[in-house]
Amino acid sequence: MPNAIEYVRQNKDRFRSELEALLRIPSVSTAPERKGEMEQAANWVAAELKKLGFDGVKLMPTGGHPLVYAEYMKAGAGAPTVLLYAHYDVQPAEPLDLWTTGAFEPTVRGENLYARGASDMKGELMALLKAIEALLRSGQGLAVNLKCMFEGEEEIGSPHLAPTIAANKALFKADFCLNVDGGILAPDCPSITYGLRGIAYFEINVTGPVGDLHSGIFGGAVHNPATVLCELIAGMHDAEGRVTLPGFYDKVRALSAEERGWLAKLPANDAWWMEKSGAPALFGEAGYSSTERASARPTLDVNGFLTGYTGKGSKTVLPSKAMAKVSMRLVPDQDPDEIRTSLERYLKEKAPPTITWTVDTHSSSRASIMARDSVAVRAASAAFEAVWGKAPLFKREGGSVPVVGQIQDLLGMESLLVGFGLPDDNLHAPNEKLHLPTWYRGIEVFVHFFEQLRKK
Amino acid sequence: MPNAIEYVRQNKDRFRSELEALLRIPSVSTAPERKGEMEQAANWVAAELKKLGFDGVKLMPTGGHPLVYAEYMKAGAGAPTVLLYAHYDVQPAEPLDLWTTGAFEPTVRGENLYARGASDMKGELMALLKAIEALLRSGQGLAVNLKCMFEGEEEIGSPHLAPTIAANKALFKADFCLNVDGGILAPDCPSITYGLRGIAYFEINVTGPVGDLHSGIFGGAVHNPATVLCELIAGMHDAEGRVTLPGFYDKVRALSAEERGWLAKLPANDAWWMEKSGAPALFGEAGYSSTERASARPTLDVNGFLTGYTGKGSKTVLPSKAMAKVSMRLVPDQDPDEIRTSLERYLKEKAPPTITWTVDTHSSSRASIMARDSVAVRAASAAFEAVWGKAPLFKREGGSVPVVGQIQDLLGMESLLVGFGLPDDNLHAPNEKLHLPTWYRGIEVFVHFFEQLRKK
Repeated sequence: MPNAIEYVRQNKDRFRSELEALLRIPSVSTAPERKGEMEQAANWVAAELKKLGFDGVKLMPTGGHPLVYAEYMKAGAGAPTVLLYAHYDVQPAEPLDLWTTGAFEPTVRGENLYARGASDMKGELMALLKAIEALLRSGQGLAVNLKCMFEGEEEIGSPHLAPTIAANKALFKADFCLNVDGGILAPDCPSITYGLRGIAYFEINVTGPVGDLHSGIFGGAVHNPATVLCELIAGMHDAEGRVTLPGFYDKVRALSAEERGWLAKLPANDAWWMEKSGAPALFGEAGYSSTERASARPTLDVNGFLTGYTGKGSKTVLPSKAMAKVSMRLVPDQDPDEIRTSLERYLKEKAPPTITWTVDTHSSSRASIMARDSVAVRAASAAFEAVWGKAPLFKREGGSVPVVGQIQDLLGMESLLVGFGLPDDNLHAPNEKLHLPTWYRGIEVFVHFFEQLRKK
Repeated sequence: MPNAIEYVRQNKDRFRSELEALLRIPSVSTAPERKGEMEQAANWVAAELKKLGFDGVKLMPTGGHPLVYAEYMKAGAGAPTVLLYAHYDVQPAEPLDLWTTGAFEPTVRGENLYARGASDMKGELMALLKAIEALLRSGQGLAVNLKCMFEGEEEIGSPHLAPTIAANKALFKADFCLNVDGGILAPDCPSITYGLRGIAYFEINVTGPVGDLHSGIFGGAVHNPATVLCELIAGMHDAEGRVTLPGFYDKVRALSAEERGWLAKLPANDAWWMEKSGAPALFGEAGYSSTERASARPTLDVNGFLTGYTGKGSKTVLPSKAMAKVSMRLVPDQDPDEIRTSLERYLKEKAPPTITWTVDTHSSSRASIMARDSVAVRAASAAFEAVWGKAPLFKREGGSVPVVGQIQDLLGMESLLVGFGLPDDNLHAPNEKLHLPTWYRGIEVFVHFFEQLRKK
């Protein structure tokens, strides 16, 4: 057993305590009132990097929340340089009343640590830092150069990341990017993600009457904008679960039989999807498996809908406005701008003359597919095998990581996605949790991964 | 000019000041935190009645907000006894940011007085009390006996009124009921309401996955309950604006050609409905005029819809639940309980197996049609003619007044609806207002009305 792995095993309780300290900082990037806590989280991470001996540690201003940069270049010019990507911001914790324990009061129950950001992704970030600590402090040493790009705006669509990268291309230059915002399929099923869906996230606002009306006096004579928005959303899928927006599938790269074979090897059958979601029954695009639907096929979801009176009891209002947040998950080679055009074409065709509508884009990114035979992927595969005793599966991820596309575009660099979140971690939902035994293994995987790169 | 009318004209500024004092009390019956203000408003009205010389003034406990009772029986056994119905509660004022001036800070702009409850219906209540004051203080005298039933729960569907009436039948006994919760079509168009729609107000809750999910990880494999609820609501109307719930129209009393003729005399053409609603275009049930659609035909409206994340920005959530408040306006002879069954049948037939649903009833009441040749209606007609110089039109009202049905059922008494609200008063909406010149005329109509009854 290498020294660093021993070090990990001897220090895992302390590692968890340090993770808990970071989880206590409510770094919710979308909430303007959390600006102070965002800076606190960035400074906390920067202090960790300084303790590890990183150079050039700084909070880079972005126009939004700061980006934490640091570098470790002591492996020399002959060693590879890896750009480490992570984010220190988290999703809002609402609805707070559905949390068993406080979202920002990390609590261990059974094998899990519960807190907002435990899995997405302060856990991943700390696994990375603790692996580096283990290599450096155990005497085993770190034979790769590292640069850190730890941003604070991933959960709001990374609005300032691309300009920050564009303005600092030399600073971020590396051989490839290790993006730790990933997950595996199950504690006993290590996997590496080779594909990601993109996203196009819109807000649709529909306005009918100029103000809220009494539904008794006007109901029947005035078209209800809430009904209209329901009808527009209802029309966005056909009975077979396909998205009906004109041109939506035009650019979709078809799944090859070979790739469907890889995806079929994954252990996520319908029973698995039922259990993980708790839904009474599954439904999705005809002709595809649930795993394909959720990772390799494009989708359209309602993420929010608000109109009229939604408090307790009743109010007999015919609302003036109705709002829906609607997002599409994209696959190669769909273009988010063309998807917006599809949505607008649909609304132009289908919206009745009784209302007016607007569409705003909240975030968008293209999907991506990673090379599966690169040095980095082979090192990760060997690292997983060293810890789990078996080779990882290769999977596509249904979520979006906009930075992967931005790093491709701006730095000409591929990203490897390695992370240790689990599908039932309640990401973006109440009772988010981290599976601690998997997290400890994850720290060891990162140790082996950096060690594998030494041999290259 | 009779003494009482002179008295009204000499005191109208004071009358308005006194109305403003009542409007400053935020008596929102649906809000548990307004319990104190509800009692304050009830006590305020009770004090007014005592000042007028009413006997037996009391706040009757109902199990909810108190009912203000008082009687004036000094006209003797030979005179008719009129049960006066009004309510001192108001709708919530939200959304507060759409009010030009504070909802509970009555403000005069032009000919209007702006405040929550100005038109619905503290204005009506005060018009009635000030007409009585004018008759009593001017020396003209009041030749009818009066009983007051001023409730505090009309805006939440009068949940405790029926049991309170049932337990006090002798107390409320009268010859007929004057319900002042009504309106006229326009300042120059006096009208008497002979029909009211009923209501069946439901909350539908749909649950899919057991908790909120990440729309990237699960989107495509799990049916989105927000989409499902949109589809269910979309299916509740056909392309011609008809309600599709099974059996919805089975009991609907057809409009006779004669009645359609009366309704066609009303000045509310499509241009009027466009102007009053500010909607870009009108839409409703095929084969009926807008006035018929909004008063004499049953309808279905979404009054509220909430799911997922509805704050600023984006959250990539696949929500576990979606909620809609849906209400139907009913006409004779629809039964609210049968309408609930219709809704449940529809949901049983149409809801997919991917979700579970529940339906809760928030309020329900039958529609009603009043006799148009009664003594009371003839007195009201003459009173309008005395003030406006022309006979009133007869119209049906699209809103619901559950108490009318309850008084019919429990006291065997007909109700006459006379009020002075206008269709653009923004009832139940921001910037509710009262047209002051019409209100002053309304006080005079009540003076003439009581005087007309003296002659009978």
